Amino acid sequence: VIAGYAVGQTQEPITPIQPPKQINLGMSELGKKLFFDPRLSKSGFISCNSCHNLSMGGSDNLQTSIGDKWQQGPINSPTVLNSSLNLAQFWDGRAADLKEQAGGPIANPGEMAFSHTLAVDLLGSIPAYQREFKQVFGKDKVDIDQVTLAIAEFEKTLVTPNARFDQWLLGKQDALSKDELDGYKLFKESGCVGCHNGEAVGGNSFQKMGLVEPYKGNEKAEGRSAVTGKDADRFNYKVPTLRNVELTYPYFHDGAANTLTEAVDVMGRIQLGKKFTQDENAKIVAFLKTLTGDQPSFQLPILPPSADNTPRPTPFK
Amino acid sequence: VIAGYAVGQTQEPITPIQPPKQINLGMSELGKKLFFDPRLSKSGFISCNSCHNLSMGGSDNLQTSIGDKWQQGPINSPTVLNSSLNLAQFWDGRAADLKEQAGGPIANPGEMAFSHTLAVDLLGSIPAYQREFKQVFGKDKVDIDQVTLAIAEFEKTLVTPNARFDQWLLGKQDALSKDELDGYKLFKESGCVGCHNGEAVGGNSFQKMGLVEPYKGNEKAEGRSAVTGKDADRFNYKVPTLRNVELTYPYFHDGAANTLTEAVDVMGRIQLGKKFTQDENAKIVAFLKTLTGDQPSFQLPILPPSADNTPRPTPFK
Ligand code: HEC
Ligand code: HEC
Ligand code: HEC
Ligand code: HEC
Ligand SMILES: [Ca+2]
Ligand SMILES: [Ca+2]
Repeated sequence: VIAGYAVGQTQEPITPIQPPKQINLGMSELGKKLFFDPRLSKSGFISCNSCHNLSMGGSDNLQTSIGDKWQQGPINSPTVLNSSLNLAQFWDGRAADLKEQAGGPIANPGEMAFSHTLAVDLLGSIPAYQREFKQVFGKDKVDIDQVTLAIAEFEKTLVTPNARFDQWLLGKQDALSKDELDGYKLFKESGCVGCHNGEAVGGNSFQKMGLVEPYKGNEKAEGRSAVTGKDADRFNYKVPTLRNVELTYPYFHDGAANTLTEAVDVMGRIQLGKKFTQDENAKIVAFLKTLTGDQPSFQLPILPPSADNTPRPTPFK
Repeated sequence: VIAGYAVGQTQEPITPIQPPKQINLGMSELGKKLFFDPRLSKSGFISCNSCHNLSMGGSDNLQTSIGDKWQQGPINSPTVLNSSLNLAQFWDGRAADLKEQAGGPIANPGEMAFSHTLAVDLLGSIPAYQREFKQVFGKDKVDIDQVTLAIAEFEKTLVTPNARFDQWLLGKQDALSKDELDGYKLFKESGCVGCHNGEAVGGNSFQKMGLVEPYKGNEKAEGRSAVTGKDADRFNYKVPTLRNVELTYPYFHDGAANTLTEAVDVMGRIQLGKKFTQDENAKIVAFLKTLTGDQPSFQLPILPPSADNTPRPTPFK
């Protein structure tokens, strides 16, 4: 035997979450403040954390999000936890990475309804931000690139290591119960791991929603074809991570499944043509709950106050 | 001289903030979770922290708050920092204490738009909350009394000691600059301390807004007379704390003053019949900024997930 082999399950299709690497701490601390700062929205009320609440698994637990002026969003808010591991961002993958993604919601009229120019002017008018940006980026003027870089750097820290499943992968035999292990076996043998695999248990491919049987959901969304223009990509979505899936209800891009039991049942039927028994379903759900890792752990950020000349929010205009 | 006299300014009308006393830690940890939990609102989107953002001085920095369905609130959101020191809660003092207050917003259709019964049922359906309530209160069933007690206990911890002004009060001579000290002298000698005094620099009396000259603001609000029914109490408001006033813009019950400069100018004119010079105003503002104390410092709370049978929020109904 190769030394160390026995300590872990090295042949599994799921691999343990690694701690974040090469984080620029100053940049990520700044990004954390920005992530929590509702002044990046027109109303002064909505921050990234409003829809990706880090107290609640990095999503809002709503079917579709609430944006500026209580607008109903078109799609379910995915978790930002472990989103650095995704092959691309958004359900349809239209943003290449976290930096590209972070510019979107600020200027999206249905989300934060602000603009990049307004956001940059606002931040530049706040003395403590101005100083912090200068310290981190060495430039005299705040620009949107710095804003999205800092937010992305913070998001890179939002990985969730140490799930019970990872402890098991790393050799702690008693980390999982028999039912949970049975559930994992079913998850592998039924073919779920074909799409949900790797470090994030998903996030690394686009797949058709409704492979065996069409999905009867909110069919306004087109999926990946909206990006590629290819008909073959219709109803293809980025396979979501199943890390912390216990916390990110409701499920699917339209938030139509309220419970894991329902989501597992749908997946079995429409992706694999398989109807799980109640007992099988419960075991898979038990396994999925072992994927909940250490949640973000940091002090509530304290935001620097606006100055007299900082533009004020206009929530009702 | 009495031993210890020389270490501090014991004759001042403002006294240092004391650290919180006799906190039930288990209860306040539970209350912290509830304070951050948007599931106490109909929409699942609005928590106490939405309008009393502890990252931003315990208020929302909006002229008037945004409630359920983006309803515009009638009045400016006061800070929850040091609110335990208030003689009563709300601008008109209609709640006797923090416990009585905490029941209000949950059931207020313009704020969280939920009900006490729904809130209690919801919390009781979440296993980890159920356990935590039982551990803290020793009862099998969650009730609204426990909810408001826990929130109030957490709010008691939200005092902000160690402001530069308090350091000066406690004997650190160089804690304040000459301008700041001049500002304090003006604040005392002009008569501001008549209403803004004590540990919270306010919060301990109701006073007429517009004592010398009528206030031209949003006169829909009646002030204290709405509670007492007495005509003499018309336009009387609880004197707000000036602790952390640098962070709690905009100012006054109607949020009409955007800057401290403006608020100080208005106060001088309509409460004291005094028009401050620019230089005097700037010194008073400099003094007021020395009242910013240590902000709440704790880990972002992680909320327990809903169970399958937990009622789901209905933001768009
Ligand atoms: C009003 C709600 C709302 C706000 C505010 C918001 N988001 Fe999102 N976010 C969403 C929704 C909904 C999606 C999915 C959109 C889609 O896929 O088409 C999303 C997607 C994402 C993703 C992609 C995750 C994935 O797995 O594909 C990231 C990362 C993200 N948001 C980060 C942020 C950041 C950073 C901010 C603040 C600058 C922010 N969001 C503000 C609702 C919101
Ligand atoms: C052919 C690829 C594929 C297979 C096989 C597959 N899935 Fe999925 N899974 C997806 C895609 C794509 C989505 C997102 C679909 C959507 O939201 O419209 C998804 C979504 C999910 C979700 C919801 C996650 C969330 O956050 O919304 C769960 C839970 C899930 N899958 C579990 C399973 C289980 C359990 C199996 C096996 C029974 C399985 N999947 C098999 C591709 C697959
Ligand atoms: C939608 C916005 C909003 C929400 C949500 C909200 N509040 Fe308030 N809060 C206000 C406003 C506005 C006032 C002032 C009302 C008045 O004086 O008439 C206030 C007053 C208070 C006060 C009195 C402070 C003082 O100095 O008089 C306390 C304490 C308080 N809220 C705590 C809470 C708690 C605890 C919750 C959650 C259970 C909460 N609030 C939810 C907006 C809100
Ligand atoms: C006669 C009592 C009285 C005197 C004297 C007085 N104030 Fe006030 N102060 C109040 C009341 C009452 C309010 C709240 C009024 C409202 O919001 O409608 C207030 C509000 C304020 C505010 C806004 C606080 C907030 O959070 O909205 C500031 C700042 C302030 N006072 C500073 C001063 C200064 C400086 C002086 C002296 C120049 C002064 N006050 C004198 C009673 C007084
Ligand atoms: Ca979800
Ligand atoms: Ca205010």
